[in-house]
Amino acid sequence: MENSLHNFELFAAIKEIFNDKMPFNKVLGLKVKSIDFKRVELEFRMRDDLIGNYIRKTLHGGVISSVIDVTGGLAAFMGITEKRAAETLETKLASLENLGTIDLRVDYLRPGSGRIFTSSGITLRTGNKVAVTRIELHNDHANLIAVGTGSYMVS
Amino acid sequence: MENSLHNFELFAAIKEIFNDKMPFNKVLGLKVKSIDFKRVELEFRMRDDLIGNYIRKTLHGGVISSVIDVTGGLAAFMGITEKRAAETLETKLASLENLGTIDLRVDYLRPGSGRIFTSSGITLRTGNKVAVTRIELHNDHANLIAVGTGSYMVS
Amino acid sequence: MENSLHNFELFAAIKEIFNDKMPFNKVLGLKVKSIDFKRVELEFRMRDDLIGNYIRKTLHGGVISSVIDVTGGLAAFMGITEKRAAETLETKLASLENLGTIDLRVDYLRPGSGRIFTSSGITLRTGNKVAVTRIELHNDHANLIAVGTGSYMVS
Amino acid sequence: MENSLHNFELFAAIKEIFNDKMPFNKVLGLKVKSIDFKRVELEFRMRDDLIGNYIRKTLHGGVISSVIDVTGGLAAFMGITEKRAAETLETKLASLENLGTIDLRVDYLRPGSGRIFTSSGITLRTGNKVAVTRIELHNDHANLIAVGTGSYMVS
Repeated sequence: MENSLHNFELFAAIKEIFNDKMPFNKVLGLKVKSIDFKRVELEFRMRDDLIGNYIRKTLHGGVISSVIDVTGGLAAFMGITEKRAAETLETKLASLENLGTIDLRVDYLRPGSGRIFTSSGITLRTGNKVAVTRIELHNDHANLIAVGTGSYMVS
Repeated sequence: MENSLHNFELFAAIKEIFNDKMPFNKVLGLKVKSIDFKRVELEFRMRDDLIGNYIRKTLHGGVISSVIDVTGGLAAFMGITEKRAAETLETKLASLENLGTIDLRVDYLRPGSGRIFTSSGITLRTGNKVAVTRIELHNDHANLIAVGTGSYMVS
Repeated sequence: MENSLHNFELFAAIKEIFNDKMPFNKVLGLKVKSIDFKRVELEFRMRDDLIGNYIRKTLHGGVISSVIDVTGGLAAFMGITEKRAAETLETKLASLENLGTIDLRVDYLRPGSGRIFTSSGITLRTGNKVAVTRIELHNDHANLIAVGTGSYMVS
Repeated sequence: MENSLHNFELFAAIKEIFNDKMPFNKVLGLKVKSIDFKRVELEFRMRDDLIGNYIRKTLHGGVISSVIDVTGGLAAFMGITEKRAAETLETKLASLENLGTIDLRVDYLRPGSGRIFTSSGITLRTGNKVAVTRIELHNDHANLIAVGTGSYMVS
């Protein structure tokens, strides 16, 4: 039970950091929708300044890659944090500062049309320092807009 | 000579589109610095809202992937456009609307610290529809922050 | 019914090409296990000369990337072929000669231990010329050894 | 001077392992051509069983990805080993056993035609455990056949 409380606090703290303390996440309007050790979900809304193609009014490719990077990073962090169960809440949160993307692949499958976009991330492999994640971005018509695969490190 | 004039107009028009007509490029503060058929260079300045890591004050990974995607896209478009020399200026510019990233890899090599960042892109292979590009992002201390490889299509 | 017969012949011919006419597939001992427009499965057995790490006796990374490339290519070809339903069997098979990988990402998740390995491929997006595919490689203990994402073109 | 001797022995031992002790490297006919901490070069010859496209008689995509993976791995290992200068020769060589590819991207630029192929690898970033490398594969007409980018770990 204590552990559940610990995790509840951990999840809330991570959510706050991603939603409120990463300036560019705010530019994107990106919000953590759900979070646990196995799967994370983030959400953002279409806005005029997120547009890349001014004729088609679709998401800029950079918005898509940004969201996929954040989603993969959060999924990787959750996976690595689960492996470090013995650490204190403070130590876990402090290690978030050392989270970095090693590399990321993004596949742009369909034009980024829609009003609300949801990205979900899972880990394919989690080591003590490195995690490999897979990410999907859907619009509010359940179209798969883009997928990603990323390797992340917590040094 | 007419051809040079044509290219001069083409480059100016493309520059204007990338600088002024793609809303998210403005969010990034991204400007085309130099452009020709073989190599393109873009530039942007550090700003508080481009930060990802609020403790280290470094660029958000999504800013890096965004800039790399735009740079690769511009390089790819220039390569494909060079192959379509016979087309009119209007047709060339219209095809920009159909430029899309197929996929992109970004390798994050060093923290995104600096005041001014420059990304450069070249094409490794250019077909009639598909181009493969390589991109590098440096800061104003000539540190290589990130590299990318991307495949683009003009449909 | 004629269409089913056409597809039956098509699948058999493609299987024969992948199993018997691509010399390096024979080096790998790679065999098409199942095939249709939506999903393909290939299989190969561990052999001493497929080893990379001579101490751990695990698959060479190149064997893994090779199998993933072939699997993605076959999945892409099936997707593109389905879109070209109106073409004759001969035309479809002839286009196989023009199938090429644009680019491929492979993530090595776990050591390549096992006796029999199965790779499966699906398409994430299929255009008239370009297809994006996802590939998974499992061993005979259902461990996920590696995943891949690849873009392919039929020119 | 002792250090040079140490390195000479180290390079010779690594060369022997790559040339003679990795079974699948022998299948590929892959040989280390030159080696130092900053750059490595490997070489192999066209052979009938390395063919993928039986009509065009070009290299199998898997041969290309295999060679690129090995080249990147060797470059990564050299980079990481340079950082571990204080270790004994035995410790360095033992760590080769723990070298693994995290992920790899391969871009197939031109058909794999030629008689002799040379791949070269450099590191873009080297940490204590992770290195990011870039690889190029040329044929004996100096055509760039493929490029790759790979992340490797020595655990």
